[in-house]
Amino acid sequence: MQEKIDNLNKPKGSLGRLESLALQLGLIQHSLSPELHHPCHVLFGADHGIERENVSISPREITWQQMLNFGRGGAGINMFCRQHGFKLRVVDVGVDYDFEGDGGKHIINRKIARGTHNFLHEAAMSESEFDKAIAIGAEMAEACYNEGCNVISFGEMGIANTSPSSVWMHLFLDIPLEQCVGAGAGLNSEGKKHKFQVIKEAVDKFMAESGIKPRTFSEHSVMSVDEAKTIIRYFGGFEMVAAIGGMLRAAELGMVVLVDGFIMTACMLAASRISPEVMDYAVFGHKGDESGHSMMLDAMNAAPLLSLGLRLGEGTGAVCAYPILQSAVNMMNEMDNFAHAEITKYF
Amino acid sequence: MQEKIDNLNKPKGSLGRLESLALQLGLIQHSLSPELHHPCHVLFGADHGIERENVSISPREITWQQMLNFGRGGAGINMFCRQHGFKLRVVDVGVDYDFEGDGGKHIINRKIARGTHNFLHEAAMSESEFDKAIAIGAEMAEACYNEGCNVISFGEMGIANTSPSSVWMHLFLDIPLEQCVGAGAGLNSEGKKHKFQVIKEAVDKFMAESGIKPRTFSEHSVMSVDEAKTIIRYFGGFEMVAAIGGMLRAAELGMVVLVDGFIMTACMLAASRISPEVMDYAVFGHKGDESGHSMMLDAMNAAPLLSLGLRLGEGTGAVCAYPILQSAVNMMNEMDNFAHAEITKYF
Repeated sequence: MQEKIDNLNKPKGSLGRLESLALQLGLIQHSLSPELHHPCHVLFGADHGIERENVSISPREITWQQMLNFGRGGAGINMFCRQHGFKLRVVDVGVDYDFEGDGGKHIINRKIARGTHNFLHEAAMSESEFDKAIAIGAEMAEACYNEGCNVISFGEMGIANTSPSSVWMHLFLDIPLEQCVGAGAGLNSEGKKHKFQVIKEAVDKFMAESGIKPRTFSEHSVMSVDEAKTIIRYFGGFEMVAAIGGMLRAAELGMVVLVDGFIMTACMLAASRISPEVMDYAVFGHKGDESGHSMMLDAMNAAPLLSLGLRLGEGTGAVCAYPILQSAVNMMNEMDNFAHAEITKYF
Repeated sequence: MQEKIDNLNKPKGSLGRLESLALQLGLIQHSLSPELHHPCHVLFGADHGIERENVSISPREITWQQMLNFGRGGAGINMFCRQHGFKLRVVDVGVDYDFEGDGGKHIINRKIARGTHNFLHEAAMSESEFDKAIAIGAEMAEACYNEGCNVISFGEMGIANTSPSSVWMHLFLDIPLEQCVGAGAGLNSEGKKHKFQVIKEAVDKFMAESGIKPRTFSEHSVMSVDEAKTIIRYFGGFEMVAAIGGMLRAAELGMVVLVDGFIMTACMLAASRISPEVMDYAVFGHKGDESGHSMMLDAMNAAPLLSLGLRLGEGTGAVCAYPILQSAVNMMNEMDNFAHAEITKYF
């Protein structure tokens, strides 16, 4: 694969990230000529018990309102999916609202409950709810795969879901909690301080009761899969666990997994605690503005393709990166090599 | 325009660079609903007298070989143009080769001379050659405009053209020459040292003879347009001056000018010395790896959309950024606003 890349009609390495990306895509597909087919975006929505603690600037009702908006086609993710030819699935895994009538007809109903429990007091979800969410994610990845999809991205809608993401970042990377908690969709410094205190109290309680400690990224072997699952279900939202299930199943099926910003990166991180190999299938789309995101990516040795200051969520940063994947693939399939072009091989 | 952007269905500012880009496109087009039509890429090729001083790792013959390759459709720029729907014009303004027969039929012949003079000893081109190159660039921009194009990018093929770019960067930004001279397509440290010495000798001679001094970016008013033109024609390549002519005419016609990497950024810089307003029409596509490029962009207050480590030239970094412009435009034209979507306006 590297030899083919080096003999394309260009100075060696001169297509930068496209070259390393092409190599990764070739390894995923076991092919010297990787191809992308039928890209799909799956957007999971759910509400969070922790939202009751005022950790987000946006009220809970935004979750269902935006889900309806996704169904109607008027949101950011809709236009990006249209632009780049993604099929969009919007899936309710736990929104605190009954989608009825016309408004909900474009929303796939897999509601597990009307939001998670409040992790300040108890586990966000039960073991069986966790299993359900994982299974729903896997079901969606399979549905895409069965349509001929080999590149998939995931998005989320869930007011307050930067909070569980921050906790996972702290526990799965051993980065101080202060550096993991950010402003979310726009908290001021007082709001951020309150958010931090709520999360700290919850994490302290959890660690004391479970005996689980933070681990660095390289300590996969030290933390058991059971411990990882406990962390995921204690703090996670249904939409996040569904995304994890989707990522794991997509990787098993040999699909490329395009990863969005802070929350989806936290989901990929959590997924890698269950199965480290999932990272081989991950292409990180976008480095967002949420303060912890760069740090999380660095700790995971992940280098996103874009950095456009997007902080909308919904998976927008993943879908926007798609043309770059397409370019990498085109490079392998359309670019002439030196021998054929009869050009002096230069450096 | 800003009010429209702020009332789109998303937290304020959450689409990051897309928002500032949309604002710029709206200002260029005097429209709340900017649109992009018939994108064109114009690739100018020419040879450089300074190449005789061994300032480049690649031999002169690469220029014509690659021009033929562009004509055949097998190069990097061809695949990116196909991917993003750009019409490509390949223009010979001074390649040291006679394109004859079938191979040259896709190359537009506007040859001024078979390469420039060697600026180590004399001005690279005469005043009338300079005027010709500017006029050819303007002609190409007009040809695109007349086909309905309102977004244009320029690319170059010209072995050794990082050398004049470095000189322009030095003289037009007052950045020490050491920091302006890089490895080009892959010089080692010895080669880079030789390149620097050649360029330094040429610049010292030029400054002593002309009395022209380096100026910072904000000193537009201190340097006369005549001085700027003297600098441009003394060191420039025909393909670079043609690009400058194209940029200036495109801006006059109200077109968006997508700017590629190190060499095209140097051309935009030079164009801005002739007419500072051209910068209002410039969207910088890509931050390349050539060491001086970041510094040049910073000094120009320019923030490119992509940073993918591309260093191929040809205009690839400009064309690859096009989907992001399209996203910014789609945002303005397809995204719902809060009032229409009946969503609680959040932050």
